[in-house]
Amino acid sequence: MYVGVDVGGTKVLAVEISETGAVLRVAHDSTPGRGDPASELEDALTRAVHAVADGRPLDAVGVSAAGLVEPSGQTVHFATHLPWREEPVRGRLADRWGAPVVLDNDAHCAAEAELAYGAGRGAGSFVLVNIGTGIGGGLVLDGQVWRGAGGMAGEFGHMQVVPDGLECECGLRGCWEQYCSGRALERVSRVSLGSHLDGPQVAARARAGDEPAIQAFASIGTWLGVGLANLVAAFDPALVVIGGGVSAVGDLLLDPAREALARALVAAPHRTVPPVVPAGLGPEAGAIGAALLARRTH
Amino acid sequence: MYVGVDVGGTKVLAVEISETGAVLRVAHDSTPGRGDPASELEDALTRAVHAVADGRPLDAVGVSAAGLVEPSGQTVHFATHLPWREEPVRGRLADRWGAPVVLDNDAHCAAEAELAYGAGRGAGSFVLVNIGTGIGGGLVLDGQVWRGAGGMAGEFGHMQVVPDGLECECGLRGCWEQYCSGRALERVSRVSLGSHLDGPQVAARARAGDEPAIQAFASIGTWLGVGLANLVAAFDPALVVIGGGVSAVGDLLLDPAREALARALVAAPHRTVPPVVPAGLGPEAGAIGAALLARRTH
Repeated sequence: MYVGVDVGGTKVLAVEISETGAVLRVAHDSTPGRGDPASELEDALTRAVHAVADGRPLDAVGVSAAGLVEPSGQTVHFATHLPWREEPVRGRLADRWGAPVVLDNDAHCAAEAELAYGAGRGAGSFVLVNIGTGIGGGLVLDGQVWRGAGGMAGEFGHMQVVPDGLECECGLRGCWEQYCSGRALERVSRVSLGSHLDGPQVAARARAGDEPAIQAFASIGTWLGVGLANLVAAFDPALVVIGGGVSAVGDLLLDPAREALARALVAAPHRTVPPVVPAGLGPEAGAIGAALLARRTH
Repeated sequence: MYVGVDVGGTKVLAVEISETGAVLRVAHDSTPGRGDPASELEDALTRAVHAVADGRPLDAVGVSAAGLVEPSGQTVHFATHLPWREEPVRGRLADRWGAPVVLDNDAHCAAEAELAYGAGRGAGSFVLVNIGTGIGGGLVLDGQVWRGAGGMAGEFGHMQVVPDGLECECGLRGCWEQYCSGRALERVSRVSLGSHLDGPQVAARARAGDEPAIQAFASIGTWLGVGLANLVAAFDPALVVIGGGVSAVGDLLLDPAREALARALVAAPHRTVPPVVPAGLGPEAGAIGAALLARRTH
């Protein structure tokens, strides 16, 4: 039995997958704050994994972490929203669970899942942009997830799109995710709608035809396309895959992105502009990818 | 005997290389204008290749073209500074020269050469940024040049760094090469030096300690670092290699770039910031890489 567990800033999500990537069982738990001891986070992971296992023995577990995982997959260097700081997470969890554990960054896990079972199947190369609170990213070339020399490839959200632009939580300014993310949507819609709504509320209004809400998605969608044009110029992927909670609104986000990509991409008339498609898997992509890595490795 | 010929906007450069990549012979010719017939360009290539061969039979020839080469390497789709438009260059030159011909984009050829014989040897992954009149680029991941799904990877110069910024020859605005290139150096130095000098003249003044000339290089060097931070955030390469004529000035360009990279790169304190090093090969890199492809393929 192969289990994947995704460790995000607010929740822990564990899944069991079948050989074909189907999700057989799911369990949730909440993530303790980053000021709490690491043991509390690991308790939450353990509860979720055990809830999925339900007494059956574990063949292997994959852990998908919203943080910087060092390339050999032993240690979480740093995670903005989690209490892990230079923690040897892989070995500790393997001891605790009595099963092999594979550890990777959540965006890389999501890219593995989209490559194997989602929108990227058969694409050869694609860029995955996950738009949630911020932007997470994955890069697939030659049918492989490219993790980077230090395991940090795909930090698309912190590419600078505006010199001296909006301040970012990362300490830099003008980062892409300040203009295209759930947080950017809330900021933009606060102005256009005149009230404070969260992302799903803005999405509901946009779907109902409310023009200021549609414009808020058009704003972040246009920035999505501008940033994609940079990634496509550099990487020339066969496909662009957009995931994450904010992308659930569909073409209200993707159509402005497609238009901006075609406008901002170098030599667009002389090339095939890659299709921009929604991710094939939902919020479980990271956990599914982690389970897939566990299955592949053990 | 393996010959590589680089076809640039102003000149044709042919080389013969040894098994270890050493340049054994060189020949130059000038490139006709893009309004001239393609046959004149092909005459110039033929003169350069024959000058290098000097009557000896050709085993294979590699052609490195400053243009958009379709992925199978048969055709040049489009080349801003050359008369080739949807030209089946590979087959035509092979017939004319009576030898196998390999055709690729010049930046990809330069990346092949830096990977095999230059600064990227043994690096596993690197980003190559060639700063000449504009910016050319190459991407090496997992010890392989990544050409892109459509053969267009590495168009770093047309990543947008300033929204609604300076107009670019490509038709877009705010492209990186408008802020960091030989042309950018001339523009910036025209203001700081108060007179019109070409790149090598500005470089000579900067090397002699002239402060406004040093500042001109610092300006384009800082923009170099900002753009590199975006590429490193996305790809996380082990190394950054800077080539092209403008880079001959060395640390007067690279030091400001290194400082800006460390400042503008996400999570710099939690990662290894890749070294920024000068290219190992000079202006012959494209031709050397083309000869290497010819040798590898035939």
